[in-house]
Amino acid sequence: MMPESSFFENMNALFYPGTVAVIGASDNPGKLGYHVMTSLSAGGYPGALVPVNPGAESIMNIKAYPSIESYRGDIDLAIVVLPAKLVSGVFHDCIRKGIRGIVLITAGFKEIDDPEGGELQEELARIAGEAQIPVIGPNTFGMINLPLSVNASFTPEFSLLKKGSISLVSQSGGIAHLMAFLAMERDIGMSKIVGLGNRLNVDFAEMFSYLSTDPDTKVIALYLEGLDDPRRLMEVAKKHRGNKPAVAYKTGSAFCGDQASLSHTGSLAGRQEIYEGALKQAGILPVRSAEALLDTARSLAMSPLPKGSRIAVLSGQAGPGMAACDLCEAQGLDLAVFRAETQRLINDLLPPLALRTNPVDMGPAWYNASAIVGIIRAVLEDEGVDGLLLLMMFASANRAAPAAISPLLLEWKQRKPVVSCLASPPGIWDEEIRTMEAGGALINCPTPERAAMTMASLWNYQRMRK
Amino acid sequence: MMPESSFFENMNALFYPGTVAVIGASDNPGKLGYHVMTSLSAGGYPGALVPVNPGAESIMNIKAYPSIESYRGDIDLAIVVLPAKLVSGVFHDCIRKGIRGIVLITAGFKEIDDPEGGELQEELARIAGEAQIPVIGPNTFGMINLPLSVNASFTPEFSLLKKGSISLVSQSGGIAHLMAFLAMERDIGMSKIVGLGNRLNVDFAEMFSYLSTDPDTKVIALYLEGLDDPRRLMEVAKKHRGNKPAVAYKTGSAFCGDQASLSHTGSLAGRQEIYEGALKQAGILPVRSAEALLDTARSLAMSPLPKGSRIAVLSGQAGPGMAACDLCEAQGLDLAVFRAETQRLINDLLPPLALRTNPVDMGPAWYNASAIVGIIRAVLEDEGVDGLLLLMMFASANRAAPAAISPLLLEWKQRKPVVSCLASPPGIWDEEIRTMEAGGALINCPTPERAAMTMASLWNYQRMRK
Repeated sequence: MMPESSFFENMNALFYPGTVAVIGASDNPGKLGYHVMTSLSAGGYPGALVPVNPGAESIMNIKAYPSIESYRGDIDLAIVVLPAKLVSGVFHDCIRKGIRGIVLITAGFKEIDDPEGGELQEELARIAGEAQIPVIGPNTFGMINLPLSVNASFTPEFSLLKKGSISLVSQSGGIAHLMAFLAMERDIGMSKIVGLGNRLNVDFAEMFSYLSTDPDTKVIALYLEGLDDPRRLMEVAKKHRGNKPAVAYKTGSAFCGDQASLSHTGSLAGRQEIYEGALKQAGILPVRSAEALLDTARSLAMSPLPKGSRIAVLSGQAGPGMAACDLCEAQGLDLAVFRAETQRLINDLLPPLALRTNPVDMGPAWYNASAIVGIIRAVLEDEGVDGLLLLMMFASANRAAPAAISPLLLEWKQRKPVVSCLASPPGIWDEEIRTMEAGGALINCPTPERAAMTMASLWNYQRMRK
Repeated sequence: MMPESSFFENMNALFYPGTVAVIGASDNPGKLGYHVMTSLSAGGYPGALVPVNPGAESIMNIKAYPSIESYRGDIDLAIVVLPAKLVSGVFHDCIRKGIRGIVLITAGFKEIDDPEGGELQEELARIAGEAQIPVIGPNTFGMINLPLSVNASFTPEFSLLKKGSISLVSQSGGIAHLMAFLAMERDIGMSKIVGLGNRLNVDFAEMFSYLSTDPDTKVIALYLEGLDDPRRLMEVAKKHRGNKPAVAYKTGSAFCGDQASLSHTGSLAGRQEIYEGALKQAGILPVRSAEALLDTARSLAMSPLPKGSRIAVLSGQAGPGMAACDLCEAQGLDLAVFRAETQRLINDLLPPLALRTNPVDMGPAWYNASAIVGIIRAVLEDEGVDGLLLLMMFASANRAAPAAISPLLLEWKQRKPVVSCLASPPGIWDEEIRTMEAGGALINCPTPERAAMTMASLWNYQRMRK
């Protein structure tokens, strides 16, 4: 057997290929081989693209080859969309050709009722294992690596995603697609999205290990259903602990083993807590929904962590501040007690009728942007404040507030976490928010509750890491 | 004292005025009287608009009057934006003029530190009470009644909302604005949005009573912080129990009394549960976030209630189905056991490799829209199924699925609740989803978890009502 490094060098070639072959490429929109070709060509893959199909001269106006051997140059990645029974032959061809990695989209292996499927998969695992070739799949949509624009999946629309630094490894194709659509809608950048499928020889452990060293990945997000051997992932995660933030969403707690029926033995909450405890021990932050997985990964990619639990809540209206404070208490955050100097400054800037001691209701200062800037500055400078929740709902009278506070927050960027809910009718504050987010000044959330949850996640990650 | 009916007749004139006067109307964009005038004129108010300002001939090209007496016709609603000390005089003028209701936006009453504010408010309460004139406010953004396009607020952007059947009564202006912006973003229609402010003589109890008889209101949504006398609301709600669905979000549990500091006596969860128990007893469904308030109100406005807890989960991919099942178990829903005939039909339509016994993974039937339609029909016809969760993430191969299932779901509309998460990249499935939602065929949610939570809310409301 070759040294382990070789497998991981091959992993890198799989995600950053100079040449990609599509084995089973097609011009027929009813075939997956058509969609994979579209993903790569329309997705702007910059390397050489080699459609392989013995029955075609060209596919999508790209010269086709009857076999991978007939292509002269080197091929790094092969994407395979042929029927299951042909795949072991293709694997042998790939190894002879010196291919470095395979994305095996084909289904019909371990997941089917027929024992032949499992046997076929074992054979493939043996062939790939001997050659140290990493294989994503089988039974997967594939993967996309946005930094290189290599969309090795049957979903061309993944290429609509913005390039970013979050990598998602998913045990479900459906959840991976959902997360991608949510990210598109909210303009959240992604690095890699990987559908593990039947996990021939690339499982969570291998992906975690690879992504820990991938310079294009800042945060690792995992979607898990159930693992044959959870300890492997936990050990790898522990080894890389503190290196990069990692967050996981685990479902399937309602199911017992392979049974597709709700389990009524033992509590769901109990089973969830056991898994979550193990994840935390490995330095992976557990969350409880696809939305929370994306929110949390995004905040860990964008924000510094709070040094402690002492949060200031500055709001433009009392209600959103109260909603955030309820969440803060429930999530183990504390309301900071301001230094005397900070409090004096706030008292000078607000009339006595306002909530001024944290939460601070800045409503009475709406018409006075310099007062709002003064309050935020005093709170950011206060060493007793570990993070700032900034909540303001648009009204005609405070329209100019985000533009007024932007320079201050950009000056303070990445020094303390600032999580905001600046909400307006569609379009009004979008540009100011984008400028501040792009500049690393804050993370904006759709509601005060989600802003508070995001701050809690940052603090929970910090606490878990310590 | 006049009979109570008079106050409520006046409430109706307040929300459906034939003529509106703006007392303190202004052409100066730095004044609230400018924004209120914009709200009414740009918002398309169809009645007569009477700007009152002794220093102007006209405001926004509308003839202005030095006082309300100088206007010849009847005036139903007066919106007051004058300084606090002038308001009691204005109230006397209004009563002499025979005005039916007042929206008092002005601040500076009970909420300020100065005892004079409280005294002024008591005087106003006495004046309005004797004349049986309902007053929204003081210290409020105002209200909007979309069915008549009367935007009696300082936020012209409320008029961007779609007309609908949800009425929101809010103790916080900030939360009311937030909810409006969330509704705009998701194209959710609203009927009335009311900011109670200091609650001179229109409190939750009066609003609940009025909305219970308002033909333009199908669902009542409440945002509460704390009530001086919660029993009044609870009694009114009990009286109207089962008449219209009602849902409430309560914050402020982290605070003790007037103290703007987190309480550490007693648990937050405990305090929340006491309030939620009281709401449930009154037939009001409690929820725990602004987003959940909107989601739940929307689903109660759009969907029939499940007759029981037995839910079918049909998904286009296994993962979203598992995520939904976890939520179902946690929220007290059951997975339906299909009749033998239903199961036989599903088994005929899906290969043996799929999850077929509920949840049903329809993934293998992606390319076969008639199989998907057949499965959904069999499940809808099954008398052992009380509601359907339908979860499908877009992929190239299932692009046509929503169009294929639309006729069946429209045929079955309003017979059983169908809550879906049909998720695609922006734009792809939007039209099909809009058609089905507009036709009452389903409620679409942004994630499988929120779809399951929505079904749980429908069931929880049904259970509470029984």
